[in-house]
Amino acid sequence: MNTNDLPASIQITEEGPREGFQIEPGPIATTDKVRLINALSETGLRTIQVCSFVSGRLVPGWVDADDVVAALRKRDSVDYTALWFNAKGMHRALAHAETLTLTGCIHTVASDAFCQSNLNRTLDENTTAMRAHTATHQEQGIEVKKIMVMAAFGCNFSGDATVDKTVGAVDTGMAIANEAQTSITEIALADTMGWANPRLIERIVGAVRERWPDIAIKLHLHDTRGLGIANAYAGLGMGVTRFDTTVGGLGGCPFAAKQSSRTDDVYKPLPPGNIATEELVLLASELGIETGVDIDALLDVGKMAESIVGHSLPSATLRGGSLSSYRNALGA
Amino acid sequence: MNTNDLPASIQITEEGPREGFQIEPGPIATTDKVRLINALSETGLRTIQVCSFVSGRLVPGWVDADDVVAALRKRDSVDYTALWFNAKGMHRALAHAETLTLTGCIHTVASDAFCQSNLNRTLDENTTAMRAHTATHQEQGIEVKKIMVMAAFGCNFSGDATVDKTVGAVDTGMAIANEAQTSITEIALADTMGWANPRLIERIVGAVRERWPDIAIKLHLHDTRGLGIANAYAGLGMGVTRFDTTVGGLGGCPFAAKQSSRTDDVYKPLPPGNIATEELVLLASELGIETGVDIDALLDVGKMAESIVGHSLPSATLRGGSLSSYRNALGA
Repeated sequence: MNTNDLPASIQITEEGPREGFQIEPGPIATTDKVRLINALSETGLRTIQVCSFVSGRLVPGWVDADDVVAALRKRDSVDYTALWFNAKGMHRALAHAETLTLTGCIHTVASDAFCQSNLNRTLDENTTAMRAHTATHQEQGIEVKKIMVMAAFGCNFSGDATVDKTVGAVDTGMAIANEAQTSITEIALADTMGWANPRLIERIVGAVRERWPDIAIKLHLHDTRGLGIANAYAGLGMGVTRFDTTVGGLGGCPFAAKQSSRTDDVYKPLPPGNIATEELVLLASELGIETGVDIDALLDVGKMAESIVGHSLPSATLRGGSLSSYRNALGA
Repeated sequence: MNTNDLPASIQITEEGPREGFQIEPGPIATTDKVRLINALSETGLRTIQVCSFVSGRLVPGWVDADDVVAALRKRDSVDYTALWFNAKGMHRALAHAETLTLTGCIHTVASDAFCQSNLNRTLDENTTAMRAHTATHQEQGIEVKKIMVMAAFGCNFSGDATVDKTVGAVDTGMAIANEAQTSITEIALADTMGWANPRLIERIVGAVRERWPDIAIKLHLHDTRGLGIANAYAGLGMGVTRFDTTVGGLGGCPFAAKQSSRTDDVYKPLPPGNIATEELVLLASELGIETGVDIDALLDVGKMAESIVGHSLPSATLRGGSLSSYRNALGA
């Protein structure tokens, strides 16, 4: 790593609304979700994942996904995206095609054991499912342009990552895309369970880049163990320009919940939150990397997110503030 | 930075007892302080800063410093250290010379404005004071072997750091040491107000190393804004082998206090906590760097620290746990 290898700018996908509101124990009012999305739209963020089209029975937090999308105040400079896992979810998303930017994603897994335990199918069965998933999207005119590899940096059920497993999972996705004659423009590598460290990021991103030098790499990092921003820094050093984050670190272990069962839960795998948007924006801006985001406006939205969920969020930047107020006061 | 430049091992100075207990609003029982120090002694940590010999009027949390040192169960493998700022404090420490490892430190400041506002004197006045401080220590047979530069990476009162200011502050300390004919073996660079970023760490550590290539560099990092572990990683990449940390991130903004005044304090400079010991130990061990510390034993002590102070601590590793339980379960 030398001092010239950082990217000039990065693209951040804000997933706070989608990630955050599915994990909170209490119901969050639809108006609060919309209020947060509208506020995020004013910070300079250019992509916001606003909801998940999933079964309201399985994920009660997203029973109002349609209402949220219908109510949000669309801003032209922002791409609003959503998540879904099956044809039913896709059709719900299609009903909002005027508001949402719809793109299909092939999900693969770098761990057979995680695929089995989380998706309840083998890797081969997942490949079959993803072929069908791709075809379903293409039939509806939704382009399938992305691959996301889950457990790309290690797994609670199968242990440490290897370059072979993660590159193999990308390869599986590429084979599905090739068969379907669609061209992949982004490979997202997800540290689903918080196993990454900076050197592992360098190793795996390096191997994927070497194999597919012309395809953009995105990092979807969780700050499960406190190494998330160091991992993002390693990614920046490798020239990664796309990141998924959540404002305030929404989706992370709520401190309130943590405190209520203090004595026995420290070693349980707690819900791993994404890296906080404002921590990545601060890191990038201090390194001279353009994000397009006004960090102080974003910190106000983080404060709003805390008031909506009713507890502190993990982001340290939210507590410590940015450096711009000091620099402004000093006339720098 | 290449993949061969990480150190084989690092030395961690645990400052949790000293840093943490001076900032907590409520009184912490002397027995609890001793219990935490004794537990830390069993984790493999080799240096623990156990108290501050300061005025009990100014810092009520350390009114019992003598009692704590008298009661701790000394372990031969551990160096117990203490902090003091004047001759009175030094004499209190001397009374515990059988228990404590006593070393003098020359404190310099890379910001005139911070020196004025925090120490209530100009840089020149500080130099005069540090000359006297050094002489006082030498008269008592305490070697002065360290320099610590405060605000080495930037300052709320004077803005961004420059290499010249920080190298100049080290130089001031070196001149004091030379006059006193003592040989400095460690230069500690403190990110007192959380202004560092990874590239700034590289730049400033690199400049100090170039000027004094044979003297060990220590980083004293605060995680004020969430970049602390990324900064530590940058330090490791520069070959830094000494770090100050606190278990759990003790000393950081207590979440409880934060929540009680939620609406108006987000942008105030909150008490900046040190980077958490277990986050640095996890980072190091995942990178193959030896620390001597049993991370799972340390996490138990972090849990003890939370129960002593009565609120959650900032460390994400404390919430997310280590990876060793998974690896052990998988037989890896």
